[in-house]
Amino acid sequence: MNSLIDLRSDTAIQPTHEMLRRLESLYFGDDLLEEDQATNLLLVKSSEMIGMESALLTPSGSMSNQISVAVFTQPGQEVLLGHASHIRNLEAGGLAANSGVQIRCTPVHQGIYDADALEASIREAQLQVAATGLISLESTYDLNAGYVPSLENLREIHSISRRYDLPIYMDGARIFNAAEALGVELADICQYVDAVQFCLNKGLGAPLGSVLVGSRRFISSARRARQRFGGGMRHTGLLAAPALLALPEWRKVSSDRIKARKIANSLSDVPHIALNNSPIQSNIVSFSVSTGKMSIDDFIEQLARRHVLVKKIGSDQVRLVAHRSVSHEDIELACSVIIETLAASSPTNFPAEG
Amino acid sequence: MNSLIDLRSDTAIQPTHEMLRRLESLYFGDDLLEEDQATNLLLVKSSEMIGMESALLTPSGSMSNQISVAVFTQPGQEVLLGHASHIRNLEAGGLAANSGVQIRCTPVHQGIYDADALEASIREAQLQVAATGLISLESTYDLNAGYVPSLENLREIHSISRRYDLPIYMDGARIFNAAEALGVELADICQYVDAVQFCLNKGLGAPLGSVLVGSRRFISSARRARQRFGGGMRHTGLLAAPALLALPEWRKVSSDRIKARKIANSLSDVPHIALNNSPIQSNIVSFSVSTGKMSIDDFIEQLARRHVLVKKIGSDQVRLVAHRSVSHEDIELACSVIIETLAASSPTNFPAEG
Amino acid sequence: MNSLIDLRSDTAIQPTHEMLRRLESLYFGDDLLEEDQATNLLLVKSSEMIGMESALLTPSGSMSNQISVAVFTQPGQEVLLGHASHIRNLEAGGLAANSGVQIRCTPVHQGIYDADALEASIREAQLQVAATGLISLESTYDLNAGYVPSLENLREIHSISRRYDLPIYMDGARIFNAAEALGVELADICQYVDAVQFCLNKGLGAPLGSVLVGSRRFISSARRARQRFGGGMRHTGLLAAPALLALPEWRKVSSDRIKARKIANSLSDVPHIALNNSPIQSNIVSFSVSTGKMSIDDFIEQLARRHVLVKKIGSDQVRLVAHRSVSHEDIELACSVIIETLAASSPTNFPAEG
Amino acid sequence: MNSLIDLRSDTAIQPTHEMLRRLESLYFGDDLLEEDQATNLLLVKSSEMIGMESALLTPSGSMSNQISVAVFTQPGQEVLLGHASHIRNLEAGGLAANSGVQIRCTPVHQGIYDADALEASIREAQLQVAATGLISLESTYDLNAGYVPSLENLREIHSISRRYDLPIYMDGARIFNAAEALGVELADICQYVDAVQFCLNKGLGAPLGSVLVGSRRFISSARRARQRFGGGMRHTGLLAAPALLALPEWRKVSSDRIKARKIANSLSDVPHIALNNSPIQSNIVSFSVSTGKMSIDDFIEQLARRHVLVKKIGSDQVRLVAHRSVSHEDIELACSVIIETLAASSPTNFPAEG
Repeated sequence: MNSLIDLRSDTAIQPTHEMLRRLESLYFGDDLLEEDQATNLLLVKSSEMIGMESALLTPSGSMSNQISVAVFTQPGQEVLLGHASHIRNLEAGGLAANSGVQIRCTPVHQGIYDADALEASIREAQLQVAATGLISLESTYDLNAGYVPSLENLREIHSISRRYDLPIYMDGARIFNAAEALGVELADICQYVDAVQFCLNKGLGAPLGSVLVGSRRFISSARRARQRFGGGMRHTGLLAAPALLALPEWRKVSSDRIKARKIANSLSDVPHIALNNSPIQSNIVSFSVSTGKMSIDDFIEQLARRHVLVKKIGSDQVRLVAHRSVSHEDIELACSVIIETLAASSPTNFPAEG
Repeated sequence: MNSLIDLRSDTAIQPTHEMLRRLESLYFGDDLLEEDQATNLLLVKSSEMIGMESALLTPSGSMSNQISVAVFTQPGQEVLLGHASHIRNLEAGGLAANSGVQIRCTPVHQGIYDADALEASIREAQLQVAATGLISLESTYDLNAGYVPSLENLREIHSISRRYDLPIYMDGARIFNAAEALGVELADICQYVDAVQFCLNKGLGAPLGSVLVGSRRFISSARRARQRFGGGMRHTGLLAAPALLALPEWRKVSSDRIKARKIANSLSDVPHIALNNSPIQSNIVSFSVSTGKMSIDDFIEQLARRHVLVKKIGSDQVRLVAHRSVSHEDIELACSVIIETLAASSPTNFPAEG
Repeated sequence: MNSLIDLRSDTAIQPTHEMLRRLESLYFGDDLLEEDQATNLLLVKSSEMIGMESALLTPSGSMSNQISVAVFTQPGQEVLLGHASHIRNLEAGGLAANSGVQIRCTPVHQGIYDADALEASIREAQLQVAATGLISLESTYDLNAGYVPSLENLREIHSISRRYDLPIYMDGARIFNAAEALGVELADICQYVDAVQFCLNKGLGAPLGSVLVGSRRFISSARRARQRFGGGMRHTGLLAAPALLALPEWRKVSSDRIKARKIANSLSDVPHIALNNSPIQSNIVSFSVSTGKMSIDDFIEQLARRHVLVKKIGSDQVRLVAHRSVSHEDIELACSVIIETLAASSPTNFPAEG
Repeated sequence: MNSLIDLRSDTAIQPTHEMLRRLESLYFGDDLLEEDQATNLLLVKSSEMIGMESALLTPSGSMSNQISVAVFTQPGQEVLLGHASHIRNLEAGGLAANSGVQIRCTPVHQGIYDADALEASIREAQLQVAATGLISLESTYDLNAGYVPSLENLREIHSISRRYDLPIYMDGARIFNAAEALGVELADICQYVDAVQFCLNKGLGAPLGSVLVGSRRFISSARRARQRFGGGMRHTGLLAAPALLALPEWRKVSSDRIKARKIANSLSDVPHIALNNSPIQSNIVSFSVSTGKMSIDDFIEQLARRHVLVKKIGSDQVRLVAHRSVSHEDIELACSVIIETLAASSPTNFPAEG
């Protein structure tokens, strides 16, 4: 089963043996009582790296996002966010269903938030008007593109937020990829936001969970919101101990960016393929593909039969995400399989071999 | 006080003396028990004119809108609607706060819904995806423009809705203006939707309230949702009896369109004024205005001092709405006052008189 | 139709001709713009009589209740209230559906809140605990009994609320009946609560609506919450002008108490009838009745055929409410009809006439 | 640290080394894609043992509870449950905040639901009435008592639920303790409910998580509700693999009952201690204690200094829960420490030793 080259998402990353061995010697405390030592250590280290006061462990990035919106807003307010935000498109309508808040989209171009448009979208409370309650950023931005908002852009949005006295939240599910791409520390990014979450799988490659970081007061409210959603867990050392090993080595995600660029390079000149997000900013590659007589589903199915898994993200759209559990050789092989499968389908557009 | 020319909204319309006299001889039943006769008569007549089974009286168009969303959707779903919808911008975030549903905007050009874009925005339920639960139209569309979606356009959207098994709701606060502009019956419009509300003030000129119309089953659920919001009222003959007088004569709103065009004609060539919604489709006129050294607030204030009330709808935007309680003479006077006030502010751009 | 003796509720009260005539000469302003003069006057007078800063007109007592809970609480909190509260039993689950708050019942004995039990029910915020957010009282208490909490009792509860820093709200739908029964001013009661609503029909006998009274800050938030529920209305002079006439004469509800006692006296010794809430504290009488071979529904139906309307409130329970639109003669007649109907059903228990 | 005798809760139970070693050789799939093999196996086995079609893994019993209420109800409905239910008292108001439903309490005596009272609490939908949407049971019932509803009692409630067409949910966080106490299979209990959750820690002693079991259709909706709360997790083999080892051996919780009875026996005749829930039905013991001059907090603190951890559950109330990670010797030692500590505080009531 390990012979699969799973490029559908960096959530496919496998924990290291070291991580799992670490669990064997662990004494497990109860995180509802804040007594799990591995968890507490993870939270302290996370806070330090992010540069904020306090932190909280949750079962997923989605829950960290939902908690943050619940804490920062009141029912009937609006959240400003980009069209491609995970929180808008892939959290089952949680924003409205959990917190009673309304979405107002603000334009983002290749990961850069349009500051003027964002400012123009801010609405102050009037009798009939839903006031803006939160600015919600994402970095890397767009799970099908992995764009990296610049520090300058974040500084600009932050400055607007202070002017209007609005909190800023960052969905940093892949913030390690962003920081690595920018060549900066996590805190350099996070100085511009009031709270942030990062995932323990994806870049770090621990099995599951998310850490939410913010002020002491924010985390105190977040802890209660987590409980309301049922996200309070018992022996969370199980999640925290593996993550503790990976956290100091987060810069290793640099190799994921290199692998993603390798994919993009291999596919950029292939007939029938048009890259969406070139140049690649982090570890995600997506493209449209003309599969000729073959349907897109058949195309993906044929790749899967050859042990290459990619994700369909539109009627002619495919995504590949690089991560630690696919090697450079895997990447090469996967690209060959993609090219060969397309060539078999539309031979005339491919140069004869030899 | 009656000497004011109030063009801020057609909600300024005054009930006729006949309407109020009608109240004197009324026996008042309790609408929670469905025992008020004037109300019951209004609901029957409304249903007939709209061409649906049943109807319900509510205190406002906003409540009818909020009830409809609550009945047609489930928490965590999405509602497709246009950017300028009242339900999105002027109902205090009720969609999310009351029903836990998320907004997804779909483009509308001068009142015509883009059918392809709308269809592309429909999302089916998947694990992480908020499924589309409702298409919410508005006619006339855009409270600052009064655009009239065509029957052909409504037919097209309706056809999409059937294909995807989605309900369609229409916020018809000003549906009388729409039907009159199209030269059709209310039922010609409403055949393309599953429920609709119209306001009792605005076009009809009764004091307040809204009638929500739909299938028997829909109205039965709506009655309960109304109660949850606190919209069940006692002696509603007070609202219904005046409306009963106005309902058969709804086509009189034609004069409002004529008045609005008169405004537009008077102002179309005025320096510093640029009409937004020309040609005028119903009873609403809006324009941007360069008020020179004078601020827009001062401009509106100066008009008010001369008894002409208009509504500021943007930093250089103004709205005027024609209705029964402003006469043709009022319109002429108001336009003169506007032109004179602008001329006084920027005399060089205005031709000398005489 | 006017010959009906409708004792089902004091909501059956008819507005006076004077009230309706008042409407004829009215200029109607828009209450969303706070421009209706009759409304503004009603709000000022209401605030003065209650002894608070500000007030708001809403379409119903239920909406005033729902708004107050929405403003005073946050989702996930608890509201302490009595088992028989209208807000718990007859508002369509609005507390939870509108505001996301949980009910915790606290015992009330004949209108007297058990202060010790109430204090013991207060819960402070802990990780898993829903904290108490509001104490919600009702006076008169229990729509099937009309009990009157004493000033001493209110003072006690108020004192607890200050100790725990909790707001107190009062559903005063029938506060006029309470104040009259206690022989005090409205402000004597309301000094012990932070906000209160009273109905414009019921005791006052205006057609419909409710006035919510509180601090300026509370009303400012309430105004926005009203909008979210769709309770903002246009020409509310229609509601306010009739109420303005009745408000100064609220002590006239004393005759309703006299009438209710007359009912109780007439029925207290009747075989098969057992009064629930004797001695009668305000204008409501309820009793259990053994209707022998006749079903309770048949019993009520037979009364109705003789133009006497009473309300079934349980499988063998009936309620009668006295109000201005039933005269002393009506009361006598109604009681005779009840006794005769019962006698016809179970003749052996009734003494032979003559 | 392992020398602590932690009797505060059975959540203190430590996973076995075997469980943790099992993780080392695991390939981790993504549970959002339903691809994790250990998880899928756990869900199949759980469904079989419970006797229902399908199952879902969640991060906690609280989340399983919250999901179930969200799936079974609609906003504005009521849930019938016992006063001591976890879902009412210890889930941060989630019922109302997440699902907009209202609680109506129904009496439970030592774990036996009062069937007549429950039936009388069922409310059908009427205009103003919040209809009952769900009956929510708990077994073992009351986290401070561990009562075990009898099969006969469950059968009775189930029969009522069918008559009124109401779903029944069971919070079976400690269902293993209940089944063991009754000497029956899980399916014998669960035949009377429509869905049930059990915790993976507590009785089973895996580190964390909960399995929710129900019909295929229920679980399909539950999967989406889980996502809305952020409970969808990635490499859940981490939670499932340890639980898979424990599940077949669930009857081992019998020793926890024996240990709890040992505690009760040891403490039953101790001066100043009055057991609350004697005879002990499962693994939980609670008692009131008179600590004399010593405060209850000091008492608990003194126990802790001697490595015995108990939980304060009221101003003079203490709870002890037996589980696999405390041995019979630990129990004996803990009871001695409790008795000695009390004796030291109030020597006169204790017989002299020797």
